[in-house]
Amino acid sequence: MTPNLRIDGLQYSKWNRERLEELRRGGLTAVHVTLAIWEGARETLDLVGRWNQLIRDNSDILCPGTSGGDIEAAKRDEKTAIIFGFQNASPFEDDVALVEVFYQLGVRVVQLTYNIQNHVGGSCYENDSGLTRFGANVVSEMNRLGMIVDLSHVGNRTTLDAIEASSRPVAITHANPSWHLEHPRNKPDDVLRALADNGGVLGCAPYPHLAGDDTGLEQWCQMVVRTAEQLGVDHVGIGSDSSFGWDDEFLMWIRMGRWTHTPDYGAGTPSAPGWAQWPDWFQSPADFPLLEEGLGGVGLTDAEVAKIIGGNWFRLFAAGFEPAH
Amino acid sequence: MTPNLRIDGLQYSKWNRERLEELRRGGLTAVHVTLAIWEGARETLDLVGRWNQLIRDNSDILCPGTSGGDIEAAKRDEKTAIIFGFQNASPFEDDVALVEVFYQLGVRVVQLTYNIQNHVGGSCYENDSGLTRFGANVVSEMNRLGMIVDLSHVGNRTTLDAIEASSRPVAITHANPSWHLEHPRNKPDDVLRALADNGGVLGCAPYPHLAGDDTGLEQWCQMVVRTAEQLGVDHVGIGSDSSFGWDDEFLMWIRMGRWTHTPDYGAGTPSAPGWAQWPDWFQSPADFPLLEEGLGGVGLTDAEVAKIIGGNWFRLFAAGFEPAH
Repeated sequence: MTPNLRIDGLQYSKWNRERLEELRRGGLTAVHVTLAIWEGARETLDLVGRWNQLIRDNSDILCPGTSGGDIEAAKRDEKTAIIFGFQNASPFEDDVALVEVFYQLGVRVVQLTYNIQNHVGGSCYENDSGLTRFGANVVSEMNRLGMIVDLSHVGNRTTLDAIEASSRPVAITHANPSWHLEHPRNKPDDVLRALADNGGVLGCAPYPHLAGDDTGLEQWCQMVVRTAEQLGVDHVGIGSDSSFGWDDEFLMWIRMGRWTHTPDYGAGTPSAPGWAQWPDWFQSPADFPLLEEGLGGVGLTDAEVAKIIGGNWFRLFAAGFEPAH
Repeated sequence: MTPNLRIDGLQYSKWNRERLEELRRGGLTAVHVTLAIWEGARETLDLVGRWNQLIRDNSDILCPGTSGGDIEAAKRDEKTAIIFGFQNASPFEDDVALVEVFYQLGVRVVQLTYNIQNHVGGSCYENDSGLTRFGANVVSEMNRLGMIVDLSHVGNRTTLDAIEASSRPVAITHANPSWHLEHPRNKPDDVLRALADNGGVLGCAPYPHLAGDDTGLEQWCQMVVRTAEQLGVDHVGIGSDSSFGWDDEFLMWIRMGRWTHTPDYGAGTPSAPGWAQWPDWFQSPADFPLLEEGLGGVGLTDAEVAKIIGGNWFRLFAAGFEPAH
């Protein structure tokens, strides 16, 4: 039996050779990585340039991930395909033409908002305007080009609007159901239902702030199974939300960007302001085999495990990265 | 006999439907158009976005021109392939990674300097530093990617340095020999010799400031013939330097950018500061058939005319737009 295709729905780590090798140790065929989080268009060009060079410098283990063919080639060559994504529509600024520009630069997944309201819509941490007129243009342009709408940090109203507006399947690359843990970043039943009806995929997250600090592997896997029962097994994947190697200063950038001078804790809390303590069963993406083993131990068939550990993301990405007809 | 493939080595007009239709009336299979002239990276994204939309809005007569295959497709489909270029390295700012970023966005020809010294080297209007260390990195990156070095407005010392540094053929897309008319923008014999030895192509210009105000069609064609005798017929093409439809305010932007508050006349003079008066034999790119007819009347064979009117540009572009092996 050939090993399952494993795909991680979101990672945003400080990359170096060691951390890239963990992707291979985890047997990951593709990873959706975050380039921009608060950056505008010009700063994002810098990030694209750095990633181009990083992939070139590590071309023995990495390759670009801009199409289903790229992901299949990665599998064949035992490399990890790097899928470029944004956790914010900030690189588009207020210019709908920049959606295509960044598609040309290889960007394939864009979360409509990060932690604050932007030109496109509202975030999960604030009163939510819903999808704006510019936001509808962005979604339509993403649909045309073959860029996947990611709704992870997005407010529920904007999320439902975007799913309605999107003519193609969307993603929630890194979040858990609210019934598992109440958190602004986790998703209520109506959002999950709309996602599944749209043909989209939810990336269940081991990230402690979203999974719960004391959640064991078996308990987490049981959450995944229950989510698969709720949505259908074709609509569940994994999005680890890995963010390893950053210092506390960078955490402040991730959470506060340039929008506030007073502390904001993002997914954390004033009593636990620092980086999350990851569980012993997920110390890095090298632990993906443990997740796969765990999923095999809670009553899923081999075929179901294969879908959740990568098959569903592959289906969504391979079709979703192609231009409309 | 199928019509010759006609290619214009440089145009920088204010585009509208009427002016685009002139390209078809002129039977042009490909045109190298200028996006940036003074713009930095961020502003250039805007220009890329506008051009993407312009090509889409006029896709019955235009198509992208990023490869030899694109140009061949344009010929087959009776469209004009639009080759994106810069007349300045300004969009690269001081970041060598942006060369690849703009290659990904379809840019295939970049003039190293416009009318003033920049990070890359010296212009033809000033004391010339020669190619800088950053400039050598830019040339090497352009060679790797498949982006053609254009030396038209570049100073002679920087030009000779760049030809020496370039492992692949370069272009002077729009200039005439100095022996035809002394002008900072026209090229002395040693530069022309180095260009031919490098395998490059010179685009002879009907632009009045470079061709001479009273030069007739026959006289201009005789200059082209003599240039072909000097360099070899494989190293001569046409670069009209068409710049139609702009008002005087835009002319000031073209010449003065943001670098001076006192008048600068670029290729013009204080006594003739405005837009050049084009000759009756080149009122727009729709007059390319007149140029071809003129070249046929001054002793060139059909095969030689075919090279000069487009074949040489096609050879240079088709090979030059491909990545190094």
